[in-house]
Amino acid sequence: MLIVGELINTSRKAVKEAVQNKDAQFIKDLAQKQFDAGADYIDVNCGNMINNEVEIMTWLVNCVQEQVEAPLCIDSPDPKALEAGLALCKYGQPMLNSITDEDGRFDPVIPLVIKYKTKVVALCMDSVGMPETAADRLRVASNLYQKITEAGVADEDIYFDPLVKPVSSVGTAGIEVLETIKVIKTKYPKVHFMCGLSNISFGLPNRKLLNRLFVVQSMAVGMDGYVLDPANKEMMATIVTSKTLLGLDEYNGDYLDAFRSGMFE
Amino acid sequence: MLIVGELINTSRKAVKEAVQNKDAQFIKDLAQKQFDAGADYIDVNCGNMINNEVEIMTWLVNCVQEQVEAPLCIDSPDPKALEAGLALCKYGQPMLNSITDEDGRFDPVIPLVIKYKTKVVALCMDSVGMPETAADRLRVASNLYQKITEAGVADEDIYFDPLVKPVSSVGTAGIEVLETIKVIKTKYPKVHFMCGLSNISFGLPNRKLLNRLFVVQSMAVGMDGYVLDPANKEMMATIVTSKTLLGLDEYNGDYLDAFRSGMFE
Repeated sequence: MLIVGELINTSRKAVKEAVQNKDAQFIKDLAQKQFDAGADYIDVNCGNMINNEVEIMTWLVNCVQEQVEAPLCIDSPDPKALEAGLALCKYGQPMLNSITDEDGRFDPVIPLVIKYKTKVVALCMDSVGMPETAADRLRVASNLYQKITEAGVADEDIYFDPLVKPVSSVGTAGIEVLETIKVIKTKYPKVHFMCGLSNISFGLPNRKLLNRLFVVQSMAVGMDGYVLDPANKEMMATIVTSKTLLGLDEYNGDYLDAFRSGMFE
Repeated sequence: MLIVGELINTSRKAVKEAVQNKDAQFIKDLAQKQFDAGADYIDVNCGNMINNEVEIMTWLVNCVQEQVEAPLCIDSPDPKALEAGLALCKYGQPMLNSITDEDGRFDPVIPLVIKYKTKVVALCMDSVGMPETAADRLRVASNLYQKITEAGVADEDIYFDPLVKPVSSVGTAGIEVLETIKVIKTKYPKVHFMCGLSNISFGLPNRKLLNRLFVVQSMAVGMDGYVLDPANKEMMATIVTSKTLLGLDEYNGDYLDAFRSGMFE
């Protein structure tokens, strides 16, 4: 299970302000908080700062690495910003978020995956657009798998993101994601999966419960990576419990530790 | 989704006392409470009253049916008690809980399924004992399916119970159940599934969370029946939310109703 802490993202108002004010301590605190809460990777995303994204990515990555010795997930639509971040990563194998099979989004990104030996998040998306069904997603994923592995990336370093959409707009949005995991996993048993969560519950009340239960559902069919807020105690308690039920917690050790530490209170 | 209300069971101390005191109102209140909370079936179980189970089953069924017009799940290891209960059922299609492929547990029970045109809970168990793996359970389920359908029961009336064991004693207990559902569902797509929940969390703290998340996991792979306490608001909110995420809630209507009624508070 791979938890990518999502909080260092300039689409969040407080982070944007910290960047504008060069408030390094704020960024460091966010990194530390996520690391302490159990994040395996710290996501760094300043994709909405299009005028000086490279400079900001550099500053953010340095801030984070001055605070925690954690591997980073470098997250940007811009290959230049991706490279700026990846070139600085010094703790463990970095993760690149993301590649797609869109025109202009595969060719400039794949050399970075190879050069920096990254894990890579592969969005099930191509130039045709956002796929609707599991069959559509499998088609896109198969094309991506072919091209990414031909470039020399190991199956274990690929994290397919099935693209989660709101159940409030399409009732089958969740079940199509579950089905996508099943069909990709059957075809490529060694690859991993990753997704963000907030889309699933968009437009509905009590979103946190929907997000948590979607994690439980998707873990049950093989999702093994999430971009989320690791400081959300209920979410992390849900993940620990879910792992225990899935037989991924030897002697229930993590579950009992979580219980003793007050995580369920 | 089929919710069988589990509260009228003489293994519960208060119910046993009500039976001993012929406190019909207590039983009626329990029936009403479960019916109001959304139970599709009301389970009636006095299997531990071995000296006069037939008489008590008769009394309990009459009590319940004087109060609510709900179909009943007649639950006993004793074919005589099963027949006493089934003969009285007058609201909808009754359910028989349960048949197995054990010596002495199939032959006396199958005629009752046919005579009273019941739904039937089929435990994945035979004379060899309790199966461990999903493959073992599939073997038992296949034998049972063959014999039950040959007797004339429709696939849609069969509810396989994969037998849930504690993850605290065998770490893979949960995942074997999920796998069992997948393999039985692949082989017999029209049958249903049913299970009780309390075993999964036996021996661990914070059992209610484990039970709820096991429902979410098992629903994600196709479990569609549970024997549980429908008055457990958090459990019922979990099921509504899970259905919404699985695309089983048109226009999110049940979810929004649940939200407005305060179910998530």
